[in-house]
Amino acid sequence: MSAKELYQQYVTAMRKIADIKYSIALLGWDQECYQPKKGAEFRAQQIGTLSGMAHDLFVDDKLGEILSQLKSSNDLSELQKRNVEETFKDYTREKKYPTSFVEKIAQVTSQTYQAWLKAREQNDFKVYSPMLETMIDMKREEAEILGYENHPYNALLDLYEPGAKTDELDVLFKEVRSNLVDFVKEIAAKPQVRTDFLKRNYPYQPQWDFGIDMLKQMGYDFDAGRQDVSPHPFTTNFSMQDVRVTTRVNENDFSTMLWSCIHEGGHALYEQGLLVENYGLPLGEAVSLGIHESQSRLWENLVGRGFGYWKGNFRNLKTVFPEQLKDVSDNEFYKGINKVQPSFIRVEADELTYHFHIMVRFEIEKGLMDKSIQVKDLSEIWNARYKEYLNVDVPSANKGVLQDIHWSHGSIGYFPTYSLGSFYAVQFFNQATKEIAGLNEQIEKGELLQLREWLREKIHVHGRRFTARELCERITGEPLNFKYFMQYARKKYEGIYGM
Amino acid sequence: MSAKELYQQYVTAMRKIADIKYSIALLGWDQECYQPKKGAEFRAQQIGTLSGMAHDLFVDDKLGEILSQLKSSNDLSELQKRNVEETFKDYTREKKYPTSFVEKIAQVTSQTYQAWLKAREQNDFKVYSPMLETMIDMKREEAEILGYENHPYNALLDLYEPGAKTDELDVLFKEVRSNLVDFVKEIAAKPQVRTDFLKRNYPYQPQWDFGIDMLKQMGYDFDAGRQDVSPHPFTTNFSMQDVRVTTRVNENDFSTMLWSCIHEGGHALYEQGLLVENYGLPLGEAVSLGIHESQSRLWENLVGRGFGYWKGNFRNLKTVFPEQLKDVSDNEFYKGINKVQPSFIRVEADELTYHFHIMVRFEIEKGLMDKSIQVKDLSEIWNARYKEYLNVDVPSANKGVLQDIHWSHGSIGYFPTYSLGSFYAVQFFNQATKEIAGLNEQIEKGELLQLREWLREKIHVHGRRFTARELCERITGEPLNFKYFMQYARKKYEGIYGM
Repeated sequence: MSAKELYQQYVTAMRKIADIKYSIALLGWDQECYQPKKGAEFRAQQIGTLSGMAHDLFVDDKLGEILSQLKSSNDLSELQKRNVEETFKDYTREKKYPTSFVEKIAQVTSQTYQAWLKAREQNDFKVYSPMLETMIDMKREEAEILGYENHPYNALLDLYEPGAKTDELDVLFKEVRSNLVDFVKEIAAKPQVRTDFLKRNYPYQPQWDFGIDMLKQMGYDFDAGRQDVSPHPFTTNFSMQDVRVTTRVNENDFSTMLWSCIHEGGHALYEQGLLVENYGLPLGEAVSLGIHESQSRLWENLVGRGFGYWKGNFRNLKTVFPEQLKDVSDNEFYKGINKVQPSFIRVEADELTYHFHIMVRFEIEKGLMDKSIQVKDLSEIWNARYKEYLNVDVPSANKGVLQDIHWSHGSIGYFPTYSLGSFYAVQFFNQATKEIAGLNEQIEKGELLQLREWLREKIHVHGRRFTARELCERITGEPLNFKYFMQYARKKYEGIYGM
Repeated sequence: MSAKELYQQYVTAMRKIADIKYSIALLGWDQECYQPKKGAEFRAQQIGTLSGMAHDLFVDDKLGEILSQLKSSNDLSELQKRNVEETFKDYTREKKYPTSFVEKIAQVTSQTYQAWLKAREQNDFKVYSPMLETMIDMKREEAEILGYENHPYNALLDLYEPGAKTDELDVLFKEVRSNLVDFVKEIAAKPQVRTDFLKRNYPYQPQWDFGIDMLKQMGYDFDAGRQDVSPHPFTTNFSMQDVRVTTRVNENDFSTMLWSCIHEGGHALYEQGLLVENYGLPLGEAVSLGIHESQSRLWENLVGRGFGYWKGNFRNLKTVFPEQLKDVSDNEFYKGINKVQPSFIRVEADELTYHFHIMVRFEIEKGLMDKSIQVKDLSEIWNARYKEYLNVDVPSANKGVLQDIHWSHGSIGYFPTYSLGSFYAVQFFNQATKEIAGLNEQIEKGELLQLREWLREKIHVHGRRFTARELCERITGEPLNFKYFMQYARKKYEGIYGM
């Protein structure tokens, strides 16, 4: 068979799998947005069946043979080669999992999630602890199955951030600690900014409409997506032509809806920017969670929490909510939405202290994997680190070690991508400012499409063509460098807090 | 292997297929309700992939072997036997289709639908005619593939209404003609009832809320379903625990929303009434389209267009729309919603002339199948029959032969189930009135749950346990008998038109 025919077989197989996976994604979207409560049980079963079928098709030996032959072929284009290489990597990894492990971890995940829900209800870590211990054992086993160099945590990191290494994250978070801890203390010593106006009454419909306008301004394509309401905002997609975002609206807190719109909008632009021709193939997928998060954070923080963005948009916002904002200047608004204050809850944290929350989780995950930390001690360790890094006394398990869903899903190695994304975001935006003439002036005028095009061209269209590291070097001339984040943070917050 | 183990294998296989089919149903629901326009192409591909997988699993020889063994087993319960028999029937039928035919008709269906859309745009039957001819050829071929006695149309009827026969429908529609044509003429000679108030302005939200209340009153379970908006109302389900209805709202025509709510609600109660334990099995499926339609028509016409129903509900409606209905009495309202008037469009027809619309389609479909009618003559034949039965001059192809989507989908043999459903509905309701003490008084008070329970017990819970004919005989003591419809029609409409 010619390389061309073989490649076509590979593409056909991959697209069939993608059709199933994207159908699962729709089942999941509906589950969060519209499903009536009694529908949950059969829906879970349906998702299980489709997931099993997608998995079976992917680990089929026939696909493996096609991939092996293609890998040794000289008749593929560079992009085709890249697709084959990445799929072969995925295939090799999937094949490592014994069926017994796959079945057992599915069961353990379900049980651990149930235990987490119950522990949340009772605000008691001990209710969760035994199942979490089993889950951690499974994750250690998973690391052994996958194989790793140096540290078992590397095996898990690689699932979310291909190529990320524990020792590199150690260095990164050391920088975070040595730079950010003192800076946040300096800020805390300054007089605080006002935020009272964010908690006034902002009626549902005009809030919703304003969020939609912000998405349109970013260049989110509503012909290839839509926004709905769900308890926790998320982005999902069923192709590059149907990329959906969700949000939630709190009438007594304007920021709940707004930042999720812009954040999820950033994720969605990445998915909408992937090329249709790459549907089902690695080049049609995002490169890593860190790079994905760089897109949401860039829009949320660099654009959406910037002074320039609110120059025009605050005028619009005041037109929509004249009463609520009548005693607020644009400068007060800007400061209010950037208030820095150590707190217990990650998802409510400001853009600086956020990284302490991640640091705690990174250190704990790493320790759990190399057994230097035991699950039974997690509550104490958690609270001690929060005291050390954030100088807060965690008042309860729900506001501490039980706050996140991730571990109950077995997502160990996921959290660091949130910080990586934030740091990538600054480095990318810094470069965009150099390359797009008058970018800041454009943002002030609400003209965001050139920025979207720049991101599309530099990042979105490539999918997994380059690794995260390669991408960063191609775009900015160097690998991820924390100094850009600190430069940005100092400049911005020294301004806000008059330091 | 024991019969018990074999049966378990059969159940597992069927449930896997059901999981896929219900996932396809969700993809279809989303397509109609929420999908952004650019998502259409990949969505069609995804539906195609899942449909192919469900088909492949169903026609798998292994399932055939299990079914053969189970069929000859003496260790199954009566209900288990029934499941196996029905599945074997489905399996045998599916196996008859050569792959080449399945692939070709999928392609022809897509092309015929496109041609129909184009013809609708141009209001010109000739644009549709050549593809429809190909489609009809395929349907004749399908009848040969499936096999039949007496008339090729029987093979197609059986797909929608198992056991229905062309000669029985001939007899039935002869009765319709000989009874209903003159009766409608008598009505037409009487002074007409007023309907002006239906076309006043009824704002969106209170209309929607009223429709939801009507669904709740019927006992539709919103924990196992929801209502959304779509261009054409429909009912779909992803299990018995998630049965969804859709409607549309016209602010200048109150009836658009209301009747679709009650009609689709009737369909939905059937699906919600199937037993969870029969998920994926024939006993967990509706017996036929005619019986399905009997449920929607019973609620829409026998209940929802009855005088008793509006005794209490008209008071509620007047509270919601006091201005719009201030000059309307309950009797005027009742007469208005039952106005009889021959017209061109089936879906807008009243409950009497509706059956002439079906009769035209039945006669044409039958003629197309036995070649006594040619596709090229359809427009003329259509218009002539409308003149004959309804005494109306069809003004254009869009208001005539092009009005329905069904043929473009290859649904030949589907239309008669609409009339069958209406006639079953009357016969069932007639029986319910005998068996439920004070049913009419209950309806007047808006107490509909005992009726729902009666339908559930008599029809819903059985799924495909009995054939449509058996079901009708079990419930009413005789097979479908048109006289009940005529008795009902005479009594009701003589009252309304003072005859």
